[in-house]
Amino acid sequence: MKVLAITGIRSEYFILQPILEEVQSRENVELKLIVTGTHLSAVHGNTYKIIENDGFNIIKLESLLSSDSLEGRCKSIGIQMMGLTDIVVREKPDWLLVLGDREESISTATVGTYLNIPVAHVCGGDRVVGNIDDSIRHAVTKLAHLHFPTTEENGERILKMGEEPWRVNVVGNPSLDSIRKQPDLSYEYINNKLGINIKEDEPFILLIKHPLSSEISEAAEQMRVTLEAVSELGYETVITYPNSDAGGFEMIGVINEFVQKYDFINAFKTIPKDLFTNLQRKAALLLGNSSSGLLEAPFLKLPVVNVGNRQKQRQHSENIIFVTHDKEQIKKAIETAIRDEEFISVCQNCSNPYGDGYSAKRIVDTLFNTEINQRLLNKQITY
Amino acid sequence: MKVLAITGIRSEYFILQPILEEVQSRENVELKLIVTGTHLSAVHGNTYKIIENDGFNIIKLESLLSSDSLEGRCKSIGIQMMGLTDIVVREKPDWLLVLGDREESISTATVGTYLNIPVAHVCGGDRVVGNIDDSIRHAVTKLAHLHFPTTEENGERILKMGEEPWRVNVVGNPSLDSIRKQPDLSYEYINNKLGINIKEDEPFILLIKHPLSSEISEAAEQMRVTLEAVSELGYETVITYPNSDAGGFEMIGVINEFVQKYDFINAFKTIPKDLFTNLQRKAALLLGNSSSGLLEAPFLKLPVVNVGNRQKQRQHSENIIFVTHDKEQIKKAIETAIRDEEFISVCQNCSNPYGDGYSAKRIVDTLFNTEINQRLLNKQITY
Amino acid sequence: MKVLAITGIRSEYFILQPILEEVQSRENVELKLIVTGTHLSAVHGNTYKIIENDGFNIIKLESLLSSDSLEGRCKSIGIQMMGLTDIVVREKPDWLLVLGDREESISTATVGTYLNIPVAHVCGGDRVVGNIDDSIRHAVTKLAHLHFPTTEENGERILKMGEEPWRVNVVGNPSLDSIRKQPDLSYEYINNKLGINIKEDEPFILLIKHPLSSEISEAAEQMRVTLEAVSELGYETVITYPNSDAGGFEMIGVINEFVQKYDFINAFKTIPKDLFTNLQRKAALLLGNSSSGLLEAPFLKLPVVNVGNRQKQRQHSENIIFVTHDKEQIKKAIETAIRDEEFISVCQNCSNPYGDGYSAKRIVDTLFNTEINQRLLNKQITY
Amino acid sequence: MKVLAITGIRSEYFILQPILEEVQSRENVELKLIVTGTHLSAVHGNTYKIIENDGFNIIKLESLLSSDSLEGRCKSIGIQMMGLTDIVVREKPDWLLVLGDREESISTATVGTYLNIPVAHVCGGDRVVGNIDDSIRHAVTKLAHLHFPTTEENGERILKMGEEPWRVNVVGNPSLDSIRKQPDLSYEYINNKLGINIKEDEPFILLIKHPLSSEISEAAEQMRVTLEAVSELGYETVITYPNSDAGGFEMIGVINEFVQKYDFINAFKTIPKDLFTNLQRKAALLLGNSSSGLLEAPFLKLPVVNVGNRQKQRQHSENIIFVTHDKEQIKKAIETAIRDEEFISVCQNCSNPYGDGYSAKRIVDTLFNTEINQRLLNKQITY
Repeated sequence: MKVLAITGIRSEYFILQPILEEVQSRENVELKLIVTGTHLSAVHGNTYKIIENDGFNIIKLESLLSSDSLEGRCKSIGIQMMGLTDIVVREKPDWLLVLGDREESISTATVGTYLNIPVAHVCGGDRVVGNIDDSIRHAVTKLAHLHFPTTEENGERILKMGEEPWRVNVVGNPSLDSIRKQPDLSYEYINNKLGINIKEDEPFILLIKHPLSSEISEAAEQMRVTLEAVSELGYETVITYPNSDAGGFEMIGVINEFVQKYDFINAFKTIPKDLFTNLQRKAALLLGNSSSGLLEAPFLKLPVVNVGNRQKQRQHSENIIFVTHDKEQIKKAIETAIRDEEFISVCQNCSNPYGDGYSAKRIVDTLFNTEINQRLLNKQITY
Repeated sequence: MKVLAITGIRSEYFILQPILEEVQSRENVELKLIVTGTHLSAVHGNTYKIIENDGFNIIKLESLLSSDSLEGRCKSIGIQMMGLTDIVVREKPDWLLVLGDREESISTATVGTYLNIPVAHVCGGDRVVGNIDDSIRHAVTKLAHLHFPTTEENGERILKMGEEPWRVNVVGNPSLDSIRKQPDLSYEYINNKLGINIKEDEPFILLIKHPLSSEISEAAEQMRVTLEAVSELGYETVITYPNSDAGGFEMIGVINEFVQKYDFINAFKTIPKDLFTNLQRKAALLLGNSSSGLLEAPFLKLPVVNVGNRQKQRQHSENIIFVTHDKEQIKKAIETAIRDEEFISVCQNCSNPYGDGYSAKRIVDTLFNTEINQRLLNKQITY
Repeated sequence: MKVLAITGIRSEYFILQPILEEVQSRENVELKLIVTGTHLSAVHGNTYKIIENDGFNIIKLESLLSSDSLEGRCKSIGIQMMGLTDIVVREKPDWLLVLGDREESISTATVGTYLNIPVAHVCGGDRVVGNIDDSIRHAVTKLAHLHFPTTEENGERILKMGEEPWRVNVVGNPSLDSIRKQPDLSYEYINNKLGINIKEDEPFILLIKHPLSSEISEAAEQMRVTLEAVSELGYETVITYPNSDAGGFEMIGVINEFVQKYDFINAFKTIPKDLFTNLQRKAALLLGNSSSGLLEAPFLKLPVVNVGNRQKQRQHSENIIFVTHDKEQIKKAIETAIRDEEFISVCQNCSNPYGDGYSAKRIVDTLFNTEINQRLLNKQITY
Repeated sequence: MKVLAITGIRSEYFILQPILEEVQSRENVELKLIVTGTHLSAVHGNTYKIIENDGFNIIKLESLLSSDSLEGRCKSIGIQMMGLTDIVVREKPDWLLVLGDREESISTATVGTYLNIPVAHVCGGDRVVGNIDDSIRHAVTKLAHLHFPTTEENGERILKMGEEPWRVNVVGNPSLDSIRKQPDLSYEYINNKLGINIKEDEPFILLIKHPLSSEISEAAEQMRVTLEAVSELGYETVITYPNSDAGGFEMIGVINEFVQKYDFINAFKTIPKDLFTNLQRKAALLLGNSSSGLLEAPFLKLPVVNVGNRQKQRQHSENIIFVTHDKEQIKKAIETAIRDEEFISVCQNCSNPYGDGYSAKRIVDTLFNTEINQRLLNKQITY
């Protein structure tokens, strides 16, 4: 059996990674991983090197145009689909494995559909408002042959869209697998590695903020407001760069301004996974609009301040405070997350719909037990 | 207002054509039509010339690889998407208009989604079994911003998939518009134009048969069985070539064999629309697996013998007999359609869920009355 | 050592084939062959299967658009170059090996130049008038790192263009290697295999005619005039289809007309190499404008009637009569080639600048003895 | 008459610009300009905006992959060629106009060759050692239909390569046209615009340094050595960023380090042309390896210190000192250029093979007087 997985961006890879490890641990299976999109871009930190270091057999596919425009991103999908077809024809995989709602999910699902190769899709059925990701994710659901949603609610949504029940498997969020398995690191070790200055007895902020496709022109200003709030409070802050969506370049510009001005604000293109997980465990709160605030934070009992429209109306737990791009609101929410005993207690006991950190095993078991036949390949809507 | 439509194949163009005519008839609107896919292929009859003759402002986009393999078709989508992005960026249309479930529908819907340009999709919500077209069509529904299904049943299906009700407009099948408007032609005129020999008092067969993506290796044999039935019965028969899907080349090979052997079997790469509509009106039956047997035949009260799995489980009227690829079954069904008074009477009175031949007006009215704003562009699933 | 060769069309492959065999026969070398262009096109006979049967390790790269237009051919080069880059990055060859003056020669030479991988070019320095091939061939010479011209004259031309002398190796025409090695076949065997009717004591014509890029609109008429001459004379005639250049489709249409009308005219999409070589050996003459009339016929002492501007001003021997597209001229030249004792004697004793049928060994020896270093990669013009 | 020009990078555009202005000033001519490559990349300063501001009718063509690898650059050519073909088919220009030796020159020349549209090539025949640019430039010469070399020596080289004499027109360097026409600006104006601090009575350095394709891995270190020399001398220094070739990203990293450390070192992604020309006029010397040191500096009598292998063996005047990447050598040469009366006097009186600043008129006159016919399109090598 041969599995061909694909990844186009760091954040996606980290969710995929425990599944890939699980596939690799099985017998009589060959795994190859196409790395494409931002992974091969120097501006985005050449993150394919992380994947190589993790020991996977990668196939490089350059696809990302050097452009922060929507058209650059869109044309890149065509480039990706051309190369992807060549690779799939050559590799003849039994399964295509893809995750989420980015360019590579729609291109892979389309290629699998046309080439009659089954597509397993992880993290479908989710709902996020104010973003084209929703359209893409649901379109991928209508193309994919096997669904691995993370929560019961997402699984229900996939069924309502007309997918046959035997194709839908709720498995939890695989990124919790890698959090679960990550060893604890000391403050000293982290500080040395990153050149920052976090301490056990002083709260620090972890900040991740991405642009919205519907609010591109405001991206820089949104980052500025957030950083003004942070800079006025003065807590040690660790930022990771936004993704490569339109607007991202401008946000990085603003980040660099604040980094030069304030010693306690630190920014990184990318943070190694082991360090990042330990920052999540040790941070007083996660600030911004990262999906990890909804998907991973409840497992870690980490308070979250979510700024703006990204992640709104998405399934979440009680550990999260939603605020708008208003400096005072942001400041107040940060202080609540750090100082308010009651809210902190709510977070400690929050519910977690995203599973127990054993998703990868469920996915790979199902994948290996699914016979590849006409029933799998010929999709039928249930109504 | 500027509308950018796209078409990749003759059959699709003929459904789109009345809508394009209606758009063109309105004031203060600019219409351009991207012609791509098989339209620019000599092997497929360079059908872009038909479109130029119809007086539309076309933009050529070469995309179809010279290959009858699945991978050629798949890679062509990537090529199409790259060129499409360049064109959309340059044309800056207010609307993208696309139809059906072929390559250009998924590429256009993806491009519209990423470029924040609303996509109007005609003929969504349909259900056909045993074909990847279903997956593509439903994926396009999840991407498109405005839906124009042909029947109430298809409209219902779109709603169930979670589309917001205000986006869904049941309009009937636009191909009935052009059938309605097509003037009657005499037998003599048709015979002269095509070099065939049909007569008012002798039944003749119209045969259109396409390959199925899930039964490619059987395509040639399926065509052979059908033509053996036809050749044994000896009715005058008019064939149009299959589309360019994998398997099509082999089917054409078989057709040519029979054409050389039997005088009463005639085949054409393509038949001009005016002649074709009159053949539909005058034929004793439509044989094969063309969608026009379901979509157009009830409007014309034309009996249909549908061979094989294509079109099965799809919404249809009482004028259709379904048979398998069995020579005797096919012969018997043809004779029923030609000789059985009762069945012929059922056909004369069959129901027609596909509308009244005034779809184009409904589509264009809605298109022009829809404000292009964030509500239109930000899709929300209803559950 | 790893050699990555590329081929895009049947005619080119047959010249390349003895070199590939020689490479494969050496120790400690890995050979892969990219098959692209017309090789993967059903319309052109899916000739990649011949190559697979010959036992080479192939990598498929779909690139040819289904179009007989110049723009289709041109856009295909871009598609080819994208895929080629992906493959070269993945394969990391020590050498790229390419031949002649078609799309794959310029795309491969460009890719090798930008990726700092040495390109060995076979058949450079040649001169043919009235064709864009000349421009492409000379441009490839300015990009390639090692040159294997077939004749002294061609080698001289490369030196004049400013190439360093140590890069230029005159080796003869490799297609003579495979002619030399091909076993003799009987008339009966050939007739049985091809369904034709050639006889030892009756002269027959071998006809190969390609379109010219500068005379596309006349291609069909040129073929018609040639076939009218042939049909009036009545000799058994064996035709192979023209290549896929613009104009080729129309020529095939004309060929099919004559095949249906005259029993003694036979046409084939492609003829297996062993049969073709024996047809070359046994034919009374080669008619048309194939380069084999110049490159291979002198080795075989085969008379040639070259019709039109293709091959004009190209280095040739005494066995060739040049005529224009005039029916009477063509008829007269055919009769001369078949009946004129003096001309036949000239052909028997004609000179042969294209070598002795041992080119492959020379090429591969040189390739293996050339060190890959900065001197090889940094080209310097000699003036 | 319709001219379609193409540009892919700022430096190239500035040479092309006076020609475009001259074309635009003529009657009965339509000019469009394809902007591609780095012009559309945010990382490279979105320089297409400069071109829009200059009032040209542009067509955007995204082609540059976000990669600093050789393969990214190479694959980008394929992307460019695909889009270019689409555009040329749509625009149907009478002439393609391209300049120099970068990706767009080879892609445009190839497209023009295959589409039978004449290509006018500016700046051919030049010779630079240690760079793939030479191979590309000479290959473009073998494809182009009309040549506009800048110097007599370059024209001679084109003739030796076998180009027909009537195709070769020595016109001088067009970038001198725009230098000639640029108005003088005051120190105050320049300082205000750029936020720098240059003074009439204090020498300052203009520094431009690009990576070499054959020395990519040393690019960062080469920049570091150069900047160490500069920082130890302490003269006000104005740097413009290197181009997007492989190695460029690393050089920018080093530049940013020095900018943060030393107040007198200033760096800019791009400097408006009017300011840049005045910096060239006022600087004490040009440092680095920019081609403007050879091509423009003699016209301006500007001393040059050229560091490393780029530009070596290229035709140059007496105003240039060649040094290796050795800090002490660089420091000494800078001091010579600033302080050595004798050398400064040599520079004041240096020869200038690159013309008088009236090249554009010559090019456009020739272009308009050249009939487009078979003689122009059918290239013949002269030997």
